[in-house]
Amino acid sequence: MDMLWNGWGDPAKAAPLPDSVTGLLRDLLGVKPRSTPALALDDLDLPAPTAGPAALAALAEAVGGAEHVRTDAESRIRHTRGKSTPDLLRIRTGDLSDVPQAVVLPATHDEVLAVLRVCADHALAAVPFGGGTSVVGGLAPERGAFVALDLRRMDALLDLDPVSRTAVLQPGLRAPAAEALLAEQGFTLGHFPQSFEWASIGGFAAARSSGQASAGYGRFDEMVLGLTLATPEGTVETGRAPRSAAGPDLRQLILGSEGAFGVITSVTVRVRPLPETKVYEGWRFASFEAGAAALRRLAQDGPRPTVLRLSDETETLIGLASPDKIGAGLGQSDAGCLAITGYEGTPEETAYRRERAAAVLTACGGTPLGTESGERWAHGRFSAPYLRDALLDVGAFAETLETAAFWSRVPELYAAVRTALTDTLTEAGTPPLVMCHISHVYENGASLYFTVVSAQGEDPVAHWTPAKHAANEAIGAAGGTISHHHGVGTDHRDWYVRETGELAVEALRAVKRRLDPDGLLNPGVLLPTD
Amino acid sequence: MDMLWNGWGDPAKAAPLPDSVTGLLRDLLGVKPRSTPALALDDLDLPAPTAGPAALAALAEAVGGAEHVRTDAESRIRHTRGKSTPDLLRIRTGDLSDVPQAVVLPATHDEVLAVLRVCADHALAAVPFGGGTSVVGGLAPERGAFVALDLRRMDALLDLDPVSRTAVLQPGLRAPAAEALLAEQGFTLGHFPQSFEWASIGGFAAARSSGQASAGYGRFDEMVLGLTLATPEGTVETGRAPRSAAGPDLRQLILGSEGAFGVITSVTVRVRPLPETKVYEGWRFASFEAGAAALRRLAQDGPRPTVLRLSDETETLIGLASPDKIGAGLGQSDAGCLAITGYEGTPEETAYRRERAAAVLTACGGTPLGTESGERWAHGRFSAPYLRDALLDVGAFAETLETAAFWSRVPELYAAVRTALTDTLTEAGTPPLVMCHISHVYENGASLYFTVVSAQGEDPVAHWTPAKHAANEAIGAAGGTISHHHGVGTDHRDWYVRETGELAVEALRAVKRRLDPDGLLNPGVLLPTD
Repeated sequence: MDMLWNGWGDPAKAAPLPDSVTGLLRDLLGVKPRSTPALALDDLDLPAPTAGPAALAALAEAVGGAEHVRTDAESRIRHTRGKSTPDLLRIRTGDLSDVPQAVVLPATHDEVLAVLRVCADHALAAVPFGGGTSVVGGLAPERGAFVALDLRRMDALLDLDPVSRTAVLQPGLRAPAAEALLAEQGFTLGHFPQSFEWASIGGFAAARSSGQASAGYGRFDEMVLGLTLATPEGTVETGRAPRSAAGPDLRQLILGSEGAFGVITSVTVRVRPLPETKVYEGWRFASFEAGAAALRRLAQDGPRPTVLRLSDETETLIGLASPDKIGAGLGQSDAGCLAITGYEGTPEETAYRRERAAAVLTACGGTPLGTESGERWAHGRFSAPYLRDALLDVGAFAETLETAAFWSRVPELYAAVRTALTDTLTEAGTPPLVMCHISHVYENGASLYFTVVSAQGEDPVAHWTPAKHAANEAIGAAGGTISHHHGVGTDHRDWYVRETGELAVEALRAVKRRLDPDGLLNPGVLLPTD
Repeated sequence: MDMLWNGWGDPAKAAPLPDSVTGLLRDLLGVKPRSTPALALDDLDLPAPTAGPAALAALAEAVGGAEHVRTDAESRIRHTRGKSTPDLLRIRTGDLSDVPQAVVLPATHDEVLAVLRVCADHALAAVPFGGGTSVVGGLAPERGAFVALDLRRMDALLDLDPVSRTAVLQPGLRAPAAEALLAEQGFTLGHFPQSFEWASIGGFAAARSSGQASAGYGRFDEMVLGLTLATPEGTVETGRAPRSAAGPDLRQLILGSEGAFGVITSVTVRVRPLPETKVYEGWRFASFEAGAAALRRLAQDGPRPTVLRLSDETETLIGLASPDKIGAGLGQSDAGCLAITGYEGTPEETAYRRERAAAVLTACGGTPLGTESGERWAHGRFSAPYLRDALLDVGAFAETLETAAFWSRVPELYAAVRTALTDTLTEAGTPPLVMCHISHVYENGASLYFTVVSAQGEDPVAHWTPAKHAANEAIGAAGGTISHHHGVGTDHRDWYVRETGELAVEALRAVKRRLDPDGLLNPGVLLPTD
């Protein structure tokens, strides 16, 4: 099934907001109903492709037939940009300036290499496309004429080694399919980002994804043991051993390369036995500060839950984690901050961790809320993007952004980003709700995930841009990284360059030039073009 | 204190082998007493430096005075090569073909940058020198005229953040000094490789070191959160957050770069509270296979000890881990395989892990040997290099090498390397003892650490080289990596290139050319020169 072209996910799962919420948005944030009706797919005015028949024929030959090169309007529109709020707002107004010339569907590593040769010959850029869930402009290259390299035909589990607990996955496998294939043999990857239902294995690797169970299973980049990369100059294969002292870790050079160095055509991952037990529960803390101190203690001294997250006061009040409860907490000034802890594993080991963690959380001032709030979180864990669609439908603006820092910088980072977003949007006449949660914890720091809801401006994308830029500046000034798990794309690129430093960026560009001398891979994504 | 110029460590700690062992070597391996007397430092014939007074004056200016540029014979000899057995054999015969022109001692990052500028101006190569403990030819560049950039003056703890549990260390800090500075504030790094007493923080990072407590504390590359790199083209700084999705992880590009990309001038590391409890104990397994299965179970399903290692039958018999017991086990055909488990942490947490791990080890067929064998291991954990000196002194040859692979490949790798070493040296007329232990474990694989003892050939280095090359070939064919924690240097470079692949190596060379366009940093180490 294809994802909704102008929103998130499965159209059948969409649900309008309850009237009470609509009223709340109107009264609290001044959200006004949209004055323009939504466009249908057929209404869109698609630019004619400039890629000629020779290029299309060569692409068809590269991928074993014309049926694997799609130039129809729907295919092209469905491969235009990703799923950030600006992406959705643009496509909803019919802006197809970033549409691909064609959608090419290779079935093998060698076909990917062949496609890249054709692209070089015909001056076409190539944009690898997995689940299409980028929220940072990762699918909108700078160069005009490009093909979307959709990897959906590369969707096999190639190998599973139960002794080493490793699996070789193709990049076009979407996460639920990967989990299903692994589950047949008793294993799981344990990677459950909010984009889980749609995102792909290759995309997880290319963008350094991190899932909601990262406290227990690690980030995706920590799960990756090997990668195969198809580049215009040939193939790179990495991963002879779990760890090595043989030079720099090339896996970590490919992870996060966002398609700019090559197309990831296979990923060797660490797998774990399917957990026998899963328990999620809620805890209440009097303040975000108190809750964060508790999370830090668990992250540093253990025992570490599998899932560990903490909403700030505003997010707890708004109850974003359970869309059906939106607004239910408003007015409860003592709601405090909701933490979710989850434990997955064997019954015995899970019980031990849960009991010990509960003692730590209690010692840190937490109050147990039982499993109901935990189960509610688990039930709604992938639903926030649907909520965003409903908010956009009623004329509200909703977007997320995220960062990470060392623990000692987290309070400053939290305050700085909140202030930047609140001040910028308030000054622009649309005072926002800014919510935040700690989404991932490490021994040495944590990530902060912000959600912003406000009224839309007249031109919603132009209205949002200064606030986003102010948040980016605040992140940099407060010592955070420009992205903890969404990636760089084109949206974060300028701040990424500042964070990384010119010389280091030049070193990465030297890698790109060696692997992609014509600059045809995702031009302008991650790295500036010449 | 300086390390012994022609051997390992503190001369005061050297001890001759007991006569019983000497007899054993003679009877078992045909070791004959050396026919040539050992050279003294004063006997060595040092090539005159070719670096002229202008270069030396400029270097002196770069580092704040002529007293920080040493050209005396002893300084130059002490910075010639590292501590592999071939290195020691060469220096013991007076081979000073790899001697530096001068030893330069910068005190700051900016002084390192200044030294690199002088090197570029005067066509001198620069070889970063930390503890001088390389065993892979990491200090023997291909280009003739070079200076040793000794980082010993950069030996401060620059910052300790007890909230984030991070510390900023200068590269010239030796591990014991680093631990002492951290201990003053209640913290430890937990990095205890065999080279602990001499190796430096910068060297750990540059060569991707891994310590004996890696099961609990992780590898050194897992401890590193940030790095500063001085290159001929300027400075690279990494590490804004524990983890990030902002592009490739540049830390992992610098880690393992072995001085070829730049000089590491500061390292931000994760630190942990000093453990209240340390317990080490021994376990006996009937076979290496059975013991390896037990280690794998702990590595994959936990609980994970802080120290976890397993000697094969031969190493257990020889008792290499406790030099004073050499030979004591010979004749005990039922010695089986000795595993060492260690637990460090709080008393309660340590007790839980120890009890649960004991249950797993028992279920896997292990027999507990108590803490005496564990304490003996801990007591002698840094002494093996002294033993090697004693063996070389009596005319034996002794060397180590190591690799890693995924668990399912470990048995094949073990057999292949043993066979390669045994066959090659036997055919050359010096049948060896080949011992092995699993030195580090991961969920998905393990490292194998081999020790070879035999009679010396007529030309000991030339005699050993074919066996070393045969082991390298066997590692590659059996799916291992050419080094798990010693690094690449010049000794492993050709096999590293084959393991990594030409295109990936070209990408790394592109990085080097961008950061070090004149190729003055460690030429030929890690990467081939043009």
